[in-house]
Amino acid sequence: MHDIAHGARDASHVEGHFESSESVRDVVIGLSDGLTVPFALAAGLSGAVSSAHIIVLAGLAEIAAGSIAMGLGGYLAARGDAEHYASELKREQTEVVTRPDDEAEEIYEIFRQYSVSREAATPVLTALQQNPPAYVDFMMRFELGLEKPAENRAHRSALTIAFSYIAGGLVPLLPYMFVGPTSSLMPTTAAALKFSVLITLIALALFGALKGRLVGTGALRSALQTSLIGGAAAAAAYGLARLLNHA
Amino acid sequence: MHDIAHGARDASHVEGHFESSESVRDVVIGLSDGLTVPFALAAGLSGAVSSAHIIVLAGLAEIAAGSIAMGLGGYLAARGDAEHYASELKREQTEVVTRPDDEAEEIYEIFRQYSVSREAATPVLTALQQNPPAYVDFMMRFELGLEKPAENRAHRSALTIAFSYIAGGLVPLLPYMFVGPTSSLMPTTAAALKFSVLITLIALALFGALKGRLVGTGALRSALQTSLIGGAAAAAAYGLARLLNHA
Repeated sequence: MHDIAHGARDASHVEGHFESSESVRDVVIGLSDGLTVPFALAAGLSGAVSSAHIIVLAGLAEIAAGSIAMGLGGYLAARGDAEHYASELKREQTEVVTRPDDEAEEIYEIFRQYSVSREAATPVLTALQQNPPAYVDFMMRFELGLEKPAENRAHRSALTIAFSYIAGGLVPLLPYMFVGPTSSLMPTTAAALKFSVLITLIALALFGALKGRLVGTGALRSALQTSLIGGAAAAAAYGLARLLNHA
Repeated sequence: MHDIAHGARDASHVEGHFESSESVRDVVIGLSDGLTVPFALAAGLSGAVSSAHIIVLAGLAEIAAGSIAMGLGGYLAARGDAEHYASELKREQTEVVTRPDDEAEEIYEIFRQYSVSREAATPVLTALQQNPPAYVDFMMRFELGLEKPAENRAHRSALTIAFSYIAGGLVPLLPYMFVGPTSSLMPTTAAALKFSVLITLIALALFGALKGRLVGTGALRSALQTSLIGGAAAAAAYGLARLLNHA
């Protein structure tokens, strides 16, 4: 990610390091919560409520709430990042001009942390001082650790997260939508719960495996992790709902 | 945050820049979702279901599911970060020894992005080569943009996120717990919904204001944002539930 901000680099060596695109990260955020929370909620309610209609209703309300909360949250977070970057950029641009000695000391201080002496750092400082935009970029990244955010990131991020959440959330609800006295497969919510657990655990494992390959954690391990999170959340919600319903 | 990894620095100037502690970030993550999604779910269900018991049940099931999903998710994410850091560290440690010329080229390349010539960068390279641990730290931060994760971060992160979610999620559910024919304030779920909207919007605004001061976005603006997210999510869930219930 850090390469993108400063243009093309020789990728041949870096390649092996993991560089996730931000859109992929947004899909992962949306899908992992979408597959988990509505699933656990529906499973939990089916431990206490026999009406599939109410379970589907609650599940869809959760999807609406969760996708908006996550999408709008992602939008505002991305916009906040962009504004934070812009305000720090302005600050550094001013300081490079108005407080050149303080900025120079900051450069020495950055290098001092890596046991690089003032003498060794001076040629770099001199080069940076001759190129104020590069100087500012250097401070943004090496003093503040800030990357330039991508353009239009906020809108894209919001939509990607929200739609991934909706897509993930519909999977566990599907079986409950087919519950009815005429259905031989799913006559009751208890039967739908079994199907919901089955298809959602499969979806969680597939999603986890893909994510693991992408991130480099390993497919199997990541598949076990996502299934564990979904399963634990669903079991807790189910247990709690049963407990409260009998209280 | 970038200072922490490399020890104390002169804070007098940096102070004004925002440096969020990771625990504060975890509280913010947990609280903002906890105050939003269970609130919206309860509001949504009260548009379709008249039983306060079912609303409380669904709300608590959501809190159980959401807190586990977010907490466990946070735990695994933090552990993944730590492992990613460790594996990249090992890789850089090896490369500094086995591929010194490639690493030297990477140093030149980092500086080239800021228009610093090879000549000016050479003294820094020489200093780093005399101190391999500092060399590796430098590459971790300036080539890969990775920070050393705090010890035990995964456990703390998981618990902080989960408890913040629970604390936030209980606020909107409280009024529904007091619904009953003997209650003069809250005889029906419709009455409880009004109280829930009232106290949750106040909580969202207070939380947003605090967060805004902390992050430097401004209290009022941040308060408006968090209230907007919560309100929009609740309105969408309410509208959807009513629509589906009448369909």
